[in-house]
Amino acid sequence: GWWGEKMGTDTLTPCSNFSMIAPNVYRSGYPTKKNFTFLKKLGIRSICYLCPEEYALVNQEFYGDNGIQICQFPMEGNKEPFVNIPEQQVNSALSTIMDTSFHPLLIHCNKGKHRTGAVCGCLRKVQGWSLVSIIDEYNRFAGDKGRAMDQQFVELFKPRLSLNRPTLPDW
Amino acid sequence: GWWGEKMGTDTLTPCSNFSMIAPNVYRSGYPTKKNFTFLKKLGIRSICYLCPEEYALVNQEFYGDNGIQICQFPMEGNKEPFVNIPEQQVNSALSTIMDTSFHPLLIHCNKGKHRTGAVCGCLRKVQGWSLVSIIDEYNRFAGDKGRAMDQQFVELFKPRLSLNRPTLPDW
Repeated sequence: GWWGEKMGTDTLTPCSNFSMIAPNVYRSGYPTKKNFTFLKKLGIRSICYLCPEEYALVNQEFYGDNGIQICQFPMEGNKEPFVNIPEQQVNSALSTIMDTSFHPLLIHCNKGKHRTGAVCGCLRKVQGWSLVSIIDEYNRFAGDKGRAMDQQFVELFKPRLSLNRPTLPDW
Repeated sequence: GWWGEKMGTDTLTPCSNFSMIAPNVYRSGYPTKKNFTFLKKLGIRSICYLCPEEYALVNQEFYGDNGIQICQFPMEGNKEPFVNIPEQQVNSALSTIMDTSFHPLLIHCNKGKHRTGAVCGCLRKVQGWSLVSIIDEYNRFAGDKGRAMDQQFVELFKPRLSLNRPTLPDW
């Protein structure tokens, strides 16, 4: 039966710190070669990449072969006292994340904890989530590495999105 | 514009330990009255309830008014040394979770950590996830309350599902 067929397939290796956060929107740490089969199964079409560094070449090649586009929003992580996540980049990233023409989409930085956590927190704000539930979700992925500066960034964030009504998600 | 409209809506309070785990499948702790608006927004149609206790009356009433059905799979949480999650109930729960006629569906127990974590871990096994990524996800929701017995249960679990091909999800 069906279960027997499933058993024949290879083991799937999701990206580190992986989760679905909304229909067709996912978050994780930096994908590696071991995760390519998993990304293919998800049908990922766009990558929302939050680091300033150039994208890993082996990934670039895999994405090219599979019609996956990379949207890069370069940001440094929050670092006390004077390095701050750039609000403008977060607004640009969110405008892409909330455009279904980029879906299915994966948001990631290096560990999927801080920059990804901050951007996802801002997305929850746009969705109208209460601050306590947003911080709870942030901490679930940051574990004991959570940063008060990220949480404060999310609390103070004022969305200025440029949204395209016909491709707005229904959530 | 659109953002202004959104701002007019009330704050959403997701259930504790809430997450989307697959298209139209969610997990959380026990929903309370404060979460009803959120459940409505998600369009939940079925509740997969994993405790032996009778369901909270105020929730039963809300579900009745909103056409949400409760599917109860009574299980005690793992407790050393002799209380074990009943494998048959997990198989029954998974057969419901993997039937799109029940979607959108919310899986929950009390805290969304142990029974829910074990059932979701078994679901990941059916999906073919590697054991390390399954345990990583289990721990993300259990925090420092993770139970080795739950993890062992997931590792040893042999799915015996009764699935209905026409209503099988595409993931």
